Amino acid sequence: MNDLLLRAARGEQVERPPVWLMRQAGRILPQYKALRGKLSGFKELVETPELACEVTIQPIDELNVDAAIIFSDILVVPEVMGLTYEMIPGKGPMFPMTIQEGSDVENLLSGEEAAVQLDYVYKALQLTKKELNGRVPLIGFSGAPWTIMAYMLEGSGSKTFSKARRFLYRQPVASKVLLQKITDTTIEYLKRQIKAGADLVQIFDSWAGILGPEQYETFSLYYIRQICEAITEVPVTVFAKNAWFALESVGKLDCNVVGIDWNTTPEIARSKVGSSKTLQGNLDPCLLYSEPDVIRAATQEMVAGFGQQQYIVNLGHGVYPDTPLDHVKVFVNEVLSMER
Amino acid sequence: MNDLLLRAARGEQVERPPVWLMRQAGRILPQYKALRGKLSGFKELVETPELACEVTIQPIDELNVDAAIIFSDILVVPEVMGLTYEMIPGKGPMFPMTIQEGSDVENLLSGEEAAVQLDYVYKALQLTKKELNGRVPLIGFSGAPWTIMAYMLEGSGSKTFSKARRFLYRQPVASKVLLQKITDTTIEYLKRQIKAGADLVQIFDSWAGILGPEQYETFSLYYIRQICEAITEVPVTVFAKNAWFALESVGKLDCNVVGIDWNTTPEIARSKVGSSKTLQGNLDPCLLYSEPDVIRAATQEMVAGFGQQQYIVNLGHGVYPDTPLDHVKVFVNEVLSMER
Repeated sequence: MNDLLLRAARGEQVERPPVWLMRQAGRILPQYKALRGKLSGFKELVETPELACEVTIQPIDELNVDAAIIFSDILVVPEVMGLTYEMIPGKGPMFPMTIQEGSDVENLLSGEEAAVQLDYVYKALQLTKKELNGRVPLIGFSGAPWTIMAYMLEGSGSKTFSKARRFLYRQPVASKVLLQKITDTTIEYLKRQIKAGADLVQIFDSWAGILGPEQYETFSLYYIRQICEAITEVPVTVFAKNAWFALESVGKLDCNVVGIDWNTTPEIARSKVGSSKTLQGNLDPCLLYSEPDVIRAATQEMVAGFGQQQYIVNLGHGVYPDTPLDHVKVFVNEVLSMER
Repeated sequence: MNDLLLRAARGEQVERPPVWLMRQAGRILPQYKALRGKLSGFKELVETPELACEVTIQPIDELNVDAAIIFSDILVVPEVMGLTYEMIPGKGPMFPMTIQEGSDVENLLSGEEAAVQLDYVYKALQLTKKELNGRVPLIGFSGAPWTIMAYMLEGSGSKTFSKARRFLYRQPVASKVLLQKITDTTIEYLKRQIKAGADLVQIFDSWAGILGPEQYETFSLYYIRQICEAITEVPVTVFAKNAWFALESVGKLDCNVVGIDWNTTPEIARSKVGSSKTLQGNLDPCLLYSEPDVIRAATQEMVAGFGQQQYIVNLGHGVYPDTPLDHVKVFVNEVLSMER
């Protein structure tokens, strides 16, 4: 098995850094578009293990990346807690019902009671693990509790997430109850993903950067810390996007890998996170619109900056849907060719 | 005249720090809502000097803040360069035409030819200056060239501004031509604002934080630097939102005041910007949803963090439209009561 990802995550010596792309399973691939066109919607794909498995493996076949990440969505967690979501084409997620006041938190399911409902994810992982047959490691994932809470309050993406942040200020006690419920669910969810075959799990705190430093510690890191401490079975990656102000604290979490966004240089990332973690990132996804020579040079420069050890090559955010597939391949192949 | 703002901007000794709020003229005030309800739309307000003057002065009367900022929009600049904008209620700005390719840049007006068309802004400033009658200083403003370019390419607000950023990678030469045209227009525009009565000008780089550090230097700071060097008549404030990675460079600009967002603690802001500039910011606008006691304590803590000299009290972003007016007053009054 190509276990580069797992060895790099554990800080072990590797022949070259592993490479994969956030959102690699999806709209950049013609195979995906062909399949997606036949379906009723995004959720059918997420909720049908055979289909989720198929699109999870597509980028391994097409791009030769060093890891598979299960095709799913972070919003399956709020759904099983009691707030269903819809995926509006061209717009993104939308929650018909949101949390309006403190008492709405009480009715939400949490922990095992919620996590058992995500059987379709576990089945998809089992199936994918079997189909991968040891080719590359399989990554499971969840949203960080704060990011999930932000959607539960806001009901959709938002530039400021001011409704969610208002709730933190106006209902700090209910916020903590909610965050704990999400945390309990997430721990159960990730443990079950691992039992179903996930070789590494990544926690996405996509909306980390809209909180101030104090709030981030109180309402986000505190809960991510619990998850990191609970997950002892496999390596854990934490990606707190735009939370530059908390990188030192993220570096002290009981995790193996820290995701880095494209605002942060390799030098700053390493100096803030410290020497004990593996770093993952951070090419600007827009750079993949450039000409191949520019992509190759930027990839080399990035790897030189992070160093070939304790490092996983990736983008600083999910790959954009209209990225030319050939350009993605130039990026991946540049890393594959680094093997000593 | 209450010249606290100007003295603080120049680093002179003040009795207490001045206070104003970004977007103070607008939807938080019942006077504004009453007037706005009678009009055809946002642009009528911006383009009618008597009305712009009226809403500029409303917060001085109602809140007792230490500065007026002319009611306008950063998007008047792309409009006179050739790309008109619409303001869609509840959605924000929308450009019916955008820049699609390099050659579209050639047809845009720039410099004096564009800036002379903004006569309604200069008239509004003249009128406001007269009506203020020396009560408080009057602030003029513009967008930073990169932020204006981002709208010209994207056509609206965006989470990633990936179209605009793609253009930087694919059309670096045309990007620089465009940014220079915007810069030339902005310099002329700000100089005319100053002639019309602006006592200080602020440059808003609202989309600074979506560029990586190198791109930010090449495609944003390089042009802001030109503006700062060209404006010698009055103090200049630069607010590069979320560009934490560039704060050291912003601190070296030929400007007087550096705006700080709410991700950045006073200590980090001061250590990165250095000792020569006045800092402005940075209460989380969401904090104004809290109870009055919390607002008072947070305001005191913030002022203690920044210090009473070389400091202008403000939020870390524009005040949100649904902020209770009483809470805004609690914030402002807490600062007003600091007078020694």
